[in-house]
Amino acid sequence: MSATTTGLAAGREEVPAEVLRARAYLLRVAEPPCREVVDLVRECGPVEAAERIRRGQISGPLVGKVAARRAHDRADADLEAAHAAGARLLVPEDAEWPAWAFTAFGSRGALEKSELAPPVALWVRGTRALSDLCDLAVSIVGSRAATGYGTHAAAELGSVLAGAGVTVISGAAFGIDAAAHRGALAAGGPTLAVLACGPDRAYPAAHETLLERIAAAGAIVSEYPPGAVPARHRFLVRNRLLAAMGGGCVVVEAGARSGSQRTASDARALGRPVMAVPGPVTSAMSVGCHELVRAGAELVGRPAHVLETIGRLGVDLAAPPDRPRRPTDDLDPDAAAVHDALPARAAWPVERLTEESGLAPEAVRAALIGLEERGLAEYVHGLWQRPAPAARR
Amino acid sequence: MSATTTGLAAGREEVPAEVLRARAYLLRVAEPPCREVVDLVRECGPVEAAERIRRGQISGPLVGKVAARRAHDRADADLEAAHAAGARLLVPEDAEWPAWAFTAFGSRGALEKSELAPPVALWVRGTRALSDLCDLAVSIVGSRAATGYGTHAAAELGSVLAGAGVTVISGAAFGIDAAAHRGALAAGGPTLAVLACGPDRAYPAAHETLLERIAAAGAIVSEYPPGAVPARHRFLVRNRLLAAMGGGCVVVEAGARSGSQRTASDARALGRPVMAVPGPVTSAMSVGCHELVRAGAELVGRPAHVLETIGRLGVDLAAPPDRPRRPTDDLDPDAAAVHDALPARAAWPVERLTEESGLAPEAVRAALIGLEERGLAEYVHGLWQRPAPAARR
Repeated sequence: MSATTTGLAAGREEVPAEVLRARAYLLRVAEPPCREVVDLVRECGPVEAAERIRRGQISGPLVGKVAARRAHDRADADLEAAHAAGARLLVPEDAEWPAWAFTAFGSRGALEKSELAPPVALWVRGTRALSDLCDLAVSIVGSRAATGYGTHAAAELGSVLAGAGVTVISGAAFGIDAAAHRGALAAGGPTLAVLACGPDRAYPAAHETLLERIAAAGAIVSEYPPGAVPARHRFLVRNRLLAAMGGGCVVVEAGARSGSQRTASDARALGRPVMAVPGPVTSAMSVGCHELVRAGAELVGRPAHVLETIGRLGVDLAAPPDRPRRPTDDLDPDAAAVHDALPARAAWPVERLTEESGLAPEAVRAALIGLEERGLAEYVHGLWQRPAPAARR
Repeated sequence: MSATTTGLAAGREEVPAEVLRARAYLLRVAEPPCREVVDLVRECGPVEAAERIRRGQISGPLVGKVAARRAHDRADADLEAAHAAGARLLVPEDAEWPAWAFTAFGSRGALEKSELAPPVALWVRGTRALSDLCDLAVSIVGSRAATGYGTHAAAELGSVLAGAGVTVISGAAFGIDAAAHRGALAAGGPTLAVLACGPDRAYPAAHETLLERIAAAGAIVSEYPPGAVPARHRFLVRNRLLAAMGGGCVVVEAGARSGSQRTASDARALGRPVMAVPGPVTSAMSVGCHELVRAGAELVGRPAHVLETIGRLGVDLAAPPDRPRRPTDDLDPDAAAVHDALPARAAWPVERLTEESGLAPEAVRAALIGLEERGLAEYVHGLWQRPAPAARR
């Protein structure tokens, strides 16, 4: 933890205040995601980009997108409010920036969708460096109106993944999100919440304590400044960050139409494997998951399947399920046929077993000797029978 | 039904008695499946094949396979017992033989597995011609130790498929099999049971009435002569007939290790699409289904998915699930952003909405007009607000 703290401090010192101010301004001046702002920053850097927007030295669609807010520079106020709330502005110039996660926005799938622009910066509250948290992470998403089954599955998944050191990323909403975070927290593992409101706000209000615990065990992240209220479209665009920051995206429960499917679609566009947890076909909350599997998502029956997919953890975590063993499992076909022919409550001579099994007498005799050695046949008074259950080895 | 009855009668008359006798002998002389018997019949016809085996004019592995039984010709006794039990021997020379279903045994996948030999003939009890029943059919298999969920899913599937005229093929066992047959019977549709014992036997005994009803509504089929008892290996080889006779194979519930997975594997080798019904990841009875989907089987969430896969029934049976509609569904991005910005319990001027939404004032005004037309925004005393729920159209 001390290394992490040092990392955070070192990162902070390196970023000039004017860059932080410029990115705080850019993050608010256009409603994210805004590809035009991202492109302008790439062209001339954040300080120059902010300056050009403030002065109106811009053209094209960007003009309309910043028209309402470009004259209101609240960067200092936002940075102060964040500081007061224990949050900080994380920028790409910072060593803690999870650069790898966001390179996905430069992929072809992402560039084809205007709403898949990367974040200009992120407001962060938490104890762990974001780059560390995103190093090995999985997004778990699903319905707010989850069933008991779904919350159980999400908690189990969150717990096993976090226990294996995988950061559980979710949206802190009711239902699946909360269950995934809680599962991770219960395992003492890392977890990360991406919000659609300011990093200082508890939304939903009932999750105030949960959010504090997430910040303490990992981090809370948002594109929206302190005090910002959540809005429906913010939940939708927030989902792209959830998808990008995880190495894969698991949908636990989702109705036929749901925000989770949008997140899955973002994940796919960003090149992240999409996984879905099946459920009863009688449950409306599993319809979305089943549709995802039918459309190509990976069915995830156990947490080990997720570990297998995001890799790096070794195959030993993904051993095949325990299969019940039967004493007759390894019998060769002849032995199996003779064993089948042995009557349950009688004893027969070899001749009768020969006829019942359809095997030659010598094959039957050979099989019987093997069966006797394994305790699966008994020779009593010249006849063959199955041993009583208690007599079996 | 009269056409079917005529078909049966016509088929019967055409097959010479010596062919029936020969195939009855061949069916019993080696335990099925026996590729060597099939090959010999293909080489010289059933009458000559039976004669050569009786006389011992054979060589190779066939010698051992018929050694125990070749001297015991029970063909006449079997045919008489069948007649007494209301059953008949159906042979490939018969017009009612479901030739299409069994051509699958000549596929490359089947030829690679010695246990995938076609039947030499079939004992049949029932009212419907087997060729008709197999014309459009689906195999439904699953665990005997099914859960309430599984039996519900199997019954629903059996009922919808049979209601659509698809023959429901299963094995008449406890659990999934019985539920699938019962669902089909409840819908008044066709169903077919493939047994691992004689066609005259009720196995399990508790299913005596069920088997009578299956015979009355469709047919009971077996490779084993009247009076033959079931044995474990017979259930396994019976599964290949189940798989072949259906145009697709649906596994409803299966443990991590189960006969259903063997049936699915046979179906795959025979070129039949394999489908699996998902269930709770917490249910041991769904583990096998989930493993099948992970291995490439199609996830079946609704009976329509099965109809879609076996085809021929038209796409209208497989319409996408009903999605709940919201009044804000068709809003363009600007309108959605403004609608999101509208406060829940207050009223704001355009300027405030402009700042909240991040849109230009003219875009906000245009959006508000559209929202007002749809009853999603209200203009009251110079301010904009959301209409009270009762006021919404």
